[in-house]
Amino acid sequence: MELKKYNAQDLLAMEQRKRATFINSMAGLKSAILVGTFNEKRQSNLAIFNSLLHIGANPPYYGLLFRPDTVRRDTLQNITDQKEYTINLLPAEFASAAHQTSAKYGPEESEFSAVGLHEHSVEGFSAPFVQEALIRIGLRLEEKIEVAVNKTLLIIGSIQYIEMDQSIVDETGFVNLSPTLACAGLDAYYKAELLKRMAYAKPELPPCKL
Amino acid sequence: MELKKYNAQDLLAMEQRKRATFINSMAGLKSAILVGTFNEKRQSNLAIFNSLLHIGANPPYYGLLFRPDTVRRDTLQNITDQKEYTINLLPAEFASAAHQTSAKYGPEESEFSAVGLHEHSVEGFSAPFVQEALIRIGLRLEEKIEVAVNKTLLIIGSIQYIEMDQSIVDETGFVNLSPTLACAGLDAYYKAELLKRMAYAKPELPPCKL
Repeated sequence: MELKKYNAQDLLAMEQRKRATFINSMAGLKSAILVGTFNEKRQSNLAIFNSLLHIGANPPYYGLLFRPDTVRRDTLQNITDQKEYTINLLPAEFASAAHQTSAKYGPEESEFSAVGLHEHSVEGFSAPFVQEALIRIGLRLEEKIEVAVNKTLLIIGSIQYIEMDQSIVDETGFVNLSPTLACAGLDAYYKAELLKRMAYAKPELPPCKL
Repeated sequence: MELKKYNAQDLLAMEQRKRATFINSMAGLKSAILVGTFNEKRQSNLAIFNSLLHIGANPPYYGLLFRPDTVRRDTLQNITDQKEYTINLLPAEFASAAHQTSAKYGPEESEFSAVGLHEHSVEGFSAPFVQEALIRIGLRLEEKIEVAVNKTLLIIGSIQYIEMDQSIVDETGFVNLSPTLACAGLDAYYKAELLKRMAYAKPELPPCKL
């Protein structure tokens, strides 16, 4: 195994696009999620994100990061205005449609129809879900937090509603994400395979390889 | 496809362990990362996290989330004291060793030796790297941000150093995370396979399935 090494100077000296690819693609695997919102005219909007975060289970909160350099202004504006938004996990087969939501469509155009996905409504909830998703989560905006170093925005939402294909959740509450789309950075899409669930780790148990 | 539906009341009424499993396991695929630190006596500490976040590429910042219910107090204390820490991405084969770092070892005991991993030093950097990792990243603490709703802590670090197996990075800077360990929630480990990298999306291009 041959090592490549980079210090802080090497990183700053790197050509800008290469550095963006490097730092983004290495920042870890993530689920590719589609965020659905309505604007004030109930025009739907759908945008891909890879920054879903577990914030708490009791009560259930999820976070979402809006980076200043790739801000989906429509999504952020709609969440701020409507206070409700959806998070949708698609089957891995929908990688191209999911990625296509990142194109800059005009404010009058819905990404749903533009990329060939379908809106799914839940009564009393003011944001569109994705019909093709395996997991659909409805959230209410609770908190917005700005990261000082570069104005990145962390949005915290409380989970109001969940619906999912019952085949991916078991009786313990465990949801198997194997069929869902994963990604890293801005352009790489992955499919995941469940290796195993581990028991609660105790100090006295010796480690062993899979 | 049969749907399971949960509203906010259903979630709050769920048995506590089941809800934790449900909300955690569904919160998206993540890279399983090991965070290495030293305490004031240069005793090493290693802890598993699944909340690596890309915060910025220019200059390069990564974030890490510390949840109040699973806080690794040693890691947080060490980062606060030493200002330096490492992030290590392991091959998927090391799932058991990575998981075992979550056991509650005493403050005098290093998780490195307890789980069978090896320390790797980089001159001038005050935190231990993991010898077995495919990607090793050294960070300096820049900012700590508290989430108001439940005291979750977001730690922002600037990237000071990176070393990796050169086989996983290409000439464009793209890092292929396929061989690295992924996870979801507290106990499920996954392996990812790269499907494809997509071109920059433009509105005029029609979507197509993979």
